[in-house]
Amino acid sequence: MDLARKVVAHLTAKRLSVFLEPELAEGIKEQSLATPLRKMNPEMLITIGGDGTILRTCLGIRKPEPPILAVDIGVRGFLTEVKPNNALRAIDSCLQGRFKLEHCVKLASKVEGRMLPEALNEVLISPDAPVKLLYAKIWVDKTPVAQCVADAVMVASQVGSTGYSLTAGGPVLDPRMDAFVLTPICPLAVFHPMVFPASSTVTIEVSRPQKTFVVLDGQHREALETESPCLTIAKSEYQTTFIRFRQNFYRRLESRMLFYRGGRG
Amino acid sequence: MDLARKVVAHLTAKRLSVFLEPELAEGIKEQSLATPLRKMNPEMLITIGGDGTILRTCLGIRKPEPPILAVDIGVRGFLTEVKPNNALRAIDSCLQGRFKLEHCVKLASKVEGRMLPEALNEVLISPDAPVKLLYAKIWVDKTPVAQCVADAVMVASQVGSTGYSLTAGGPVLDPRMDAFVLTPICPLAVFHPMVFPASSTVTIEVSRPQKTFVVLDGQHREALETESPCLTIAKSEYQTTFIRFRQNFYRRLESRMLFYRGGRG
Amino acid sequence: MDLARKVVAHLTAKRLSVFLEPELAEGIKEQSLATPLRKMNPEMLITIGGDGTILRTCLGIRKPEPPILAVDIGVRGFLTEVKPNNALRAIDSCLQGRFKLEHCVKLASKVEGRMLPEALNEVLISPDAPVKLLYAKIWVDKTPVAQCVADAVMVASQVGSTGYSLTAGGPVLDPRMDAFVLTPICPLAVFHPMVFPASSTVTIEVSRPQKTFVVLDGQHREALETESPCLTIAKSEYQTTFIRFRQNFYRRLESRMLFYRGGRG
Amino acid sequence: MDLARKVVAHLTAKRLSVFLEPELAEGIKEQSLATPLRKMNPEMLITIGGDGTILRTCLGIRKPEPPILAVDIGVRGFLTEVKPNNALRAIDSCLQGRFKLEHCVKLASKVEGRMLPEALNEVLISPDAPVKLLYAKIWVDKTPVAQCVADAVMVASQVGSTGYSLTAGGPVLDPRMDAFVLTPICPLAVFHPMVFPASSTVTIEVSRPQKTFVVLDGQHREALETESPCLTIAKSEYQTTFIRFRQNFYRRLESRMLFYRGGRG
Repeated sequence: MDLARKVVAHLTAKRLSVFLEPELAEGIKEQSLATPLRKMNPEMLITIGGDGTILRTCLGIRKPEPPILAVDIGVRGFLTEVKPNNALRAIDSCLQGRFKLEHCVKLASKVEGRMLPEALNEVLISPDAPVKLLYAKIWVDKTPVAQCVADAVMVASQVGSTGYSLTAGGPVLDPRMDAFVLTPICPLAVFHPMVFPASSTVTIEVSRPQKTFVVLDGQHREALETESPCLTIAKSEYQTTFIRFRQNFYRRLESRMLFYRGGRG
Repeated sequence: MDLARKVVAHLTAKRLSVFLEPELAEGIKEQSLATPLRKMNPEMLITIGGDGTILRTCLGIRKPEPPILAVDIGVRGFLTEVKPNNALRAIDSCLQGRFKLEHCVKLASKVEGRMLPEALNEVLISPDAPVKLLYAKIWVDKTPVAQCVADAVMVASQVGSTGYSLTAGGPVLDPRMDAFVLTPICPLAVFHPMVFPASSTVTIEVSRPQKTFVVLDGQHREALETESPCLTIAKSEYQTTFIRFRQNFYRRLESRMLFYRGGRG
Repeated sequence: MDLARKVVAHLTAKRLSVFLEPELAEGIKEQSLATPLRKMNPEMLITIGGDGTILRTCLGIRKPEPPILAVDIGVRGFLTEVKPNNALRAIDSCLQGRFKLEHCVKLASKVEGRMLPEALNEVLISPDAPVKLLYAKIWVDKTPVAQCVADAVMVASQVGSTGYSLTAGGPVLDPRMDAFVLTPICPLAVFHPMVFPASSTVTIEVSRPQKTFVVLDGQHREALETESPCLTIAKSEYQTTFIRFRQNFYRRLESRMLFYRGGRG
Repeated sequence: MDLARKVVAHLTAKRLSVFLEPELAEGIKEQSLATPLRKMNPEMLITIGGDGTILRTCLGIRKPEPPILAVDIGVRGFLTEVKPNNALRAIDSCLQGRFKLEHCVKLASKVEGRMLPEALNEVLISPDAPVKLLYAKIWVDKTPVAQCVADAVMVASQVGSTGYSLTAGGPVLDPRMDAFVLTPICPLAVFHPMVFPASSTVTIEVSRPQKTFVVLDGQHREALETESPCLTIAKSEYQTTFIRFRQNFYRRLESRMLFYRGGRG
């Protein structure tokens, strides 16, 4: 909160327009700056929080997304870039153009003709309650790939490959990989994680149970109650873009891998 | 249904008293034989179905449990013993005393002073919704064992070691092992399955999230809504007893392992 | 042997020139057709055997490689295409131009300035004896990726992703993926399989032990006895090309996955 | 070396008899104290080194074994107890009887009628060279358990369950478990780690390849060159006994698990 106040003051002093997510605006008594996420159209977006904050923000914001400067508070994140005490300095670097952009592919998914919000990390499909098995057929483009009997199954992006997918046994995808991973959770029969080109469309046709959930980035849940729902997942036309000062995927991986799972919980 | 009718006729012809679970009694128009599971006190119990049927029956029946003759229909089960076309012959063998008994340790669990139904396969604790992390401290007797950050965590019995626990990476316990397995699902940090003597009490103290579920044998769910609930799991004083004609754990394991997960779904 | 004789007769009757690997020529008493693998320059190559036969042949043959028609005998292979009793018919289809070609990326590796034979499935580096740990630093292009402490570490091609790498926990790469997998065996610390673009160069610098082996496709072994040897692995300029009548990676995967590990043993 | 000298001086000053392993005696110029390990019969044994030192010592010493005070130098060990700067103090505590004893079951193995040295951590059987598959049949007592097709297979003791077995996917056995784990390395077909009572005899009958190695605690290797050799593993009548000041298996597990693999390399 304090940090949010400082950031607002810092930006206002530079005569920049500041928009605040309404709940935050309320929290720091800056209601006049409140703008719903859906209506913001900023040149740059600052998140203060962990990976969950980033993931929720990306699910909610207008497309195309502005670049994100992600300030870390509390918990160590994998997606975040800047420690709180470096936040103002990092903002100044941004304003002076001293930064790199990391572009991240997002996942566009569709159920019964309806588009879902776009996911940055992964799209998961699971029964509506714990300890139920999901029975599904999986296609990649027009090719049947596998029958899946498992707790759940997910498609993760390159960025998401270091998140939930990793804890379920999926591989790490190098940042240059334009690919998705299909990762089952506790499969009943042998079913290995599979890597596909990001130009593919993955189709998951659920045969059982009747009630399932699609969960996007561990943040957005949606119940599917039609008979044998069919979920398709493909590369989005939009990206999430992070402001980075050092581009160093493997160092982040090394230091944070053990502790991280993309914004969950 | 047909098989149930035949079994009833077969037993009645031998002047044995038959009690039917009310829904089944209704189904085969033998309402006069209907007795709620809780009120039955038979010398022997016949289940017709898969492992799920057995697990549900064991959760519901009065203790101590009578021996179970498990007839398999449709799907291949791990706990079942007899194919439908051998059912009547198997019943005759039982009546003539030609069978072995397989005694299976059960799991007695307690939450906030309240005993839960006894589980045959496993007791699982999980957040109330998919893709949330469970944070818990785990003790064995008075020894702190691990901090668990995972999708869920379970304690499985010897019998349950070939069920859900196996698909989450747990070991197979030899039938002579008087032991439990503690198995996490998709742990965030390194957390290996652990094997404890069945004389231990395992305590799982949840710190997050606020709403969790205890799931017994994939059949009985119970919401925990107190702050930081504490679940203890120990060996039950009761057992489940199966009627077996050949005692052959490893052959069953070999032929069914790939297809089985104890009565789920 | 019988099949080899039939194939020779079938081809000779069509007035085609036939060359035989010398040991086989000896075996079927056709010494006049014997030509060392290194000296053959055929338009098409027929292998009769399992995946091991194919892998050994590809390691030994002149580059660029001719297309391979792989006849399966005995054990079920993943790379083979034709059952023995369809062999002559398959040859006729080839001669009539009714086939597809499957092109497979190969791995070119270099140790201390010396090129090794090109591998189709994987390049593995391991201590010289069982139960010793390998300590190595791994780079991808110029980026340090990980410290590896494990039984061994391998780089597998797309084709090799369904071989040894899979049994060590690596993912399946879709046939359209132009990528490699880096897979450790029994890593001591957390080290997940990683997927890289096939345009990368992977460098493995061994720090311990002093004696290590590079093993190519489980067939060719080479002792490294220099201090801290450095192995680099990149995409070869050559490919292995298989003659296929139906292009169906996922059906082969489904039916053979459980039984296969690329030509080992 | 320095520490060894100090320990010798400390013990000699207390008029205790000191015996040194010959190589160490040479190293610190105390040749008069040199006694081969096989001939020592001390009341207490002090090891200075890592887990490898302990494992080698236990393989070589006369049975029954004296209690071991294990001083850690350099690398963090799982079996060691005392830091170098606490070594003299720890010795004094021992002499005053202020310590606990941790008794560890050992593995007695036999090949073709010949007993092998007893292993503390694990007995592994593997082909003679990397990347070859081992084909073996496995029995527990008289029960056939599984066909194993894998890189190698091991039987680990309770103590060994936190060593090599763990990195191959085996479970942790609680210190009170009187049990063994059978753990395959990179199995080709589905083959889960299995836990047996320590009263069992495990028999491994190798069918392929012709040359295999038995490796005890990663330290002692023995080539098997008979046709289809048969290895049996059972609980030894002897134990290894460690002097402990705090009995705290799970704290050691937590702090060292990521870095340790019992005396390998």
